[in-house]
Amino acid sequence: MQVNAERIMKRIQDLAQFNATPGQGITRFSYSPQDAQARAYLMEQFRELGLTVRVDPMGNIRARYDGTDPALAPLWIGSHIDSVRHGGPYDGIVGVVGALETVSVFREAGHRPRRSVEVVIFPEEEGSNFGTTMVGSKCLVGKLDLHGLEQLRAEDGRTCVQVAEDFGLHPREVAKCRLQPGEVDAMVELHIEQGIVLDRKGLRLGVVQAIAGMVTVRVTVTGESNHAGATPMDMRRDPLVAAARLIGRVQEIAASECGKATVATVGEILCSPNMPNVIPGQVSFTVDIRDIRDEGIDRALELLHQAIREITDAGFTVTVETIGRNQPVALTERVVSAVREAAESCGAPYLDMNSGAVHDTSMLALVTDVGMIFIPSVDGKSHNPQEYTAPEDIALGCQVLLETALRLTA
Amino acid sequence: MQVNAERIMKRIQDLAQFNATPGQGITRFSYSPQDAQARAYLMEQFRELGLTVRVDPMGNIRARYDGTDPALAPLWIGSHIDSVRHGGPYDGIVGVVGALETVSVFREAGHRPRRSVEVVIFPEEEGSNFGTTMVGSKCLVGKLDLHGLEQLRAEDGRTCVQVAEDFGLHPREVAKCRLQPGEVDAMVELHIEQGIVLDRKGLRLGVVQAIAGMVTVRVTVTGESNHAGATPMDMRRDPLVAAARLIGRVQEIAASECGKATVATVGEILCSPNMPNVIPGQVSFTVDIRDIRDEGIDRALELLHQAIREITDAGFTVTVETIGRNQPVALTERVVSAVREAAESCGAPYLDMNSGAVHDTSMLALVTDVGMIFIPSVDGKSHNPQEYTAPEDIALGCQVLLETALRLTA
Repeated sequence: MQVNAERIMKRIQDLAQFNATPGQGITRFSYSPQDAQARAYLMEQFRELGLTVRVDPMGNIRARYDGTDPALAPLWIGSHIDSVRHGGPYDGIVGVVGALETVSVFREAGHRPRRSVEVVIFPEEEGSNFGTTMVGSKCLVGKLDLHGLEQLRAEDGRTCVQVAEDFGLHPREVAKCRLQPGEVDAMVELHIEQGIVLDRKGLRLGVVQAIAGMVTVRVTVTGESNHAGATPMDMRRDPLVAAARLIGRVQEIAASECGKATVATVGEILCSPNMPNVIPGQVSFTVDIRDIRDEGIDRALELLHQAIREITDAGFTVTVETIGRNQPVALTERVVSAVREAAESCGAPYLDMNSGAVHDTSMLALVTDVGMIFIPSVDGKSHNPQEYTAPEDIALGCQVLLETALRLTA
Repeated sequence: MQVNAERIMKRIQDLAQFNATPGQGITRFSYSPQDAQARAYLMEQFRELGLTVRVDPMGNIRARYDGTDPALAPLWIGSHIDSVRHGGPYDGIVGVVGALETVSVFREAGHRPRRSVEVVIFPEEEGSNFGTTMVGSKCLVGKLDLHGLEQLRAEDGRTCVQVAEDFGLHPREVAKCRLQPGEVDAMVELHIEQGIVLDRKGLRLGVVQAIAGMVTVRVTVTGESNHAGATPMDMRRDPLVAAARLIGRVQEIAASECGKATVATVGEILCSPNMPNVIPGQVSFTVDIRDIRDEGIDRALELLHQAIREITDAGFTVTVETIGRNQPVALTERVVSAVREAAESCGAPYLDMNSGAVHDTSMLALVTDVGMIFIPSVDGKSHNPQEYTAPEDIALGCQVLLETALRLTA
């Protein structure tokens, strides 16, 4: 069985039309008019394929292609269709269109697997509406309940509950989203890498072993603001100089003092008063640390705190606030093996790799066996209009997904 | 002859009432209603003292106390009455009230010096309206002409010419402001230090030897923006890490690789896209370098460029844009000596020091002999509502100004 590359690209292009910012990348927030259009389009595809569709109270979609043994829990394949503001056309979409293609090919070939396959679509993966990622999959695994949804607010002030109700959903019944033990046999997500590793190595396929955990902290260094001209160097307590030293340390710590998979990034820095002729009084910056092992994250944090102690010893006040922390996720060996065999069956060299970004699969891992397939992002670009993956790489990823589904539903 | 400390503080308090932000520090921009009120108050003081007042086309005020020899060029004493937004009550004002006090005491004592004394007030010293400092004194010395004034724009879009005309002045006749050679014999300015040196050393008086020159450059480092989680450390080109290294170098260069008077500050930093989970793509920051010798500034710049070359060798693109440069000003030995003798006659220990901030006196130095007297700023605070100088220090500074004026007009 072979995927149809033309049909795949046609569906990606069709979905790219449901976009709030034509000409400026793709903007399709969950629960928006563009989301409604994309959902209607997919519902029509599901109808043509004769799938049985269920939409849960938060808008998670499950479209079922029945296997021969209805007693078996289904295999899930899918991803998300929402985007960041001014994002690209492939993030999430490739996994959804790939799942649709698997079922399309199965049906064309008259192939009835033993185990049913469900194409799944998770709403609000990107966190674009409420600043919280993976809302749909979090509801499926019990990480978000009604109280949690009431806390999430959109920019216009509405809560997640109001937004979902306005979209015609039933968020007050979110408890019904919760998956039962054994309800899903396994989950496989095809996704663009959103990183530069495959592209730099000239490889077209990644078999994901683990999804990195992460901690984000905000470090605030307070010194003493003074006149830039009238304050001799030996009378200064300049928090930007101290922050610069810490930023250098963050890089060293991740590059050479922790594990191979440890990364750490200072992405945001705020300086006050931020005027050319005034020594700053306070500087704060975020540190995003990721690793596939919790010990790696802890080690990096410990070294960061050591570096901070040197700064406080020098007379600065430093506070560290934890903004968020996610655990690393080891994907399931039996699913990863199936992906690897599928890749080998396609004859394409692949890379055993980790995901530095989180995905809905991170949540599903809490309740079922999971695996992921990566395809290259040119120059690692994602979450922007320049996001690009070659059509032949997309087709290859879809073929590996199909081969994986064959193995896991046999 | 002794200054009257009560009268000095009364006048400072009186002037503090002309304020656009009561309760939130002093905001008195030149050419504003508050400036008009302060000018009217001072005109009344001048009238009571029988001074001859001239206001030039840009609003520079000269109030003359006649000496016995009208053929001698006058001594100028004074400062400015404008403020930054939410500034303090002493910056500039102390020099104006001090000058007024000298003339008040001369008159009370029936003292007629040989040389006339003029109390001078320069408008728009702070640059609050147009972002350009020392507008009044620059017009006096020919550093700003009508064309230059047309380029200066206030936040509301009006040019400096329009703003000054709306205030009832005659900026189109700015050429008439220009001082003739020999028109002023010398200029002495009393000012709060706006730095922490005197306060830290527990000294109440500074005799200024030189006003530092400065250069301000903007350094922009471009690297490669990528996903903070999906990009291994060895595949990054993070411009914030490079910028942090340069910020550390700026501090080291000024602290230990240039002259004793060299200072360098990174006061403003802008990071793009400045998001916690994205490796920055571009970081720009300002470097403000000051020294009383041009060679010191050049040396610091040279070392900065060396450090930048290491960054470009590592694969970053770095641009350096010069935002502005002022020459250092050596004050005039005969005036500095007079200030020093005056300080000694008051029995107060003083510090021979430099000014890291620029003042109207920097401009006057281009056309006449100049000197400056500093009094302490508690904790070095200035340009904010916490600006404070003790009344006894203000009185001492005024007394030194009076003694200096006695010497320079004898």
